[in-house]
Amino acid sequence: MSAKTGTRGPYAKTAKVRARAIDAGIALFSSAGYNGATLTVIAETLGMTLTGLQHHFPTKESLLTAVLEERDRRAEEALPSSGSHTDAFENLAAMLSESQKTPGLMELQCVLSAEATSADHPAHEYFQRRYARLRGEATEAFRQMAEDGQLTSAYEPASLAAMLIAVVDGLQLQWLLERGSVDIEAETRRFLRTFIPAIH
Amino acid sequence: MSAKTGTRGPYAKTAKVRARAIDAGIALFSSAGYNGATLTVIAETLGMTLTGLQHHFPTKESLLTAVLEERDRRAEEALPSSGSHTDAFENLAAMLSESQKTPGLMELQCVLSAEATSADHPAHEYFQRRYARLRGEATEAFRQMAEDGQLTSAYEPASLAAMLIAVVDGLQLQWLLERGSVDIEAETRRFLRTFIPAIH
Repeated sequence: MSAKTGTRGPYAKTAKVRARAIDAGIALFSSAGYNGATLTVIAETLGMTLTGLQHHFPTKESLLTAVLEERDRRAEEALPSSGSHTDAFENLAAMLSESQKTPGLMELQCVLSAEATSADHPAHEYFQRRYARLRGEATEAFRQMAEDGQLTSAYEPASLAAMLIAVVDGLQLQWLLERGSVDIEAETRRFLRTFIPAIH
Repeated sequence: MSAKTGTRGPYAKTAKVRARAIDAGIALFSSAGYNGATLTVIAETLGMTLTGLQHHFPTKESLLTAVLEERDRRAEEALPSSGSHTDAFENLAAMLSESQKTPGLMELQCVLSAEATSADHPAHEYFQRRYARLRGEATEAFRQMAEDGQLTSAYEPASLAAMLIAVVDGLQLQWLLERGSVDIEAETRRFLRTFIPAIH
């Protein structure tokens, strides 16, 4: 902050302000959506001037990009890498329960992905790429599991992948609308168990 | 319109303006969300002044209410009532393909339901009631089908209901993000067939 701390001070301060702005962005984009959010409201939340915030994030879109990067970072952190595909799906189910405790990212995913179905939304391509990647990874996992005789379903791996991602998204929507209306983890496990007998 | 047409004219004109405003509301709420939409933009789309539009819809919320009523009316129209529960689920699957041809209501459902997860969204209670009702109806259908020996699954009817609604919502999200990425009807049929053997 002062000359004494050298370059560390200003950089540390910048990082701190950016982190606070990203948290405020996650909160406002989750509740008002990207479309309903403004940098002005985010600056107010932070007790900053709009000009002060724009020094770090010149546009709402630049804040969105930072929010999505942070989201990816936290999502990767939350899902431990695991040996077998069955373990990976077990981890996914467990992570869904865990994320209900701090539903910020779940809300963000739900609201932004829906808004982003519009072709002119700034996160449109981000979500197109994200879903293509998720489907691709799940398809490959199911393909290998089918080869290894771990699936009881004759459906194509790509079908199972699209259905699994749909079930997870749809259950989260129902839970976000009314906490307690559905058990996201239990229903995801039941869905997986219909074609992976080893799932608990 | 003139004295000659008596009361029919003005009423017919009002109905026509309201219908046009509702269509414009469906389009803008679908793309920008309720949060991102303004009556000013809707008035511009209609070639009206804001004051003129507010004569029919004093607030954005009053237009939202009318849009949701219209949505319910069209949804009810699109889904023919049918004798057996199996027929009803067949109809649901067929309707999903049909609605891809005019995806306006699908987009509206996707964007508004996600926005409405926020407790202070004006459609929050509407979507809470809607999902509780859908889950209740599907649960009752599966309960009767289980009794009649038409299900191959030992899962609770309420679980199957939550999963089915989730699959349908989630597949629509994937399709809206990228047309052609998933086959909504085919995957919904596959999902249903895992526990209703009679589904085609």
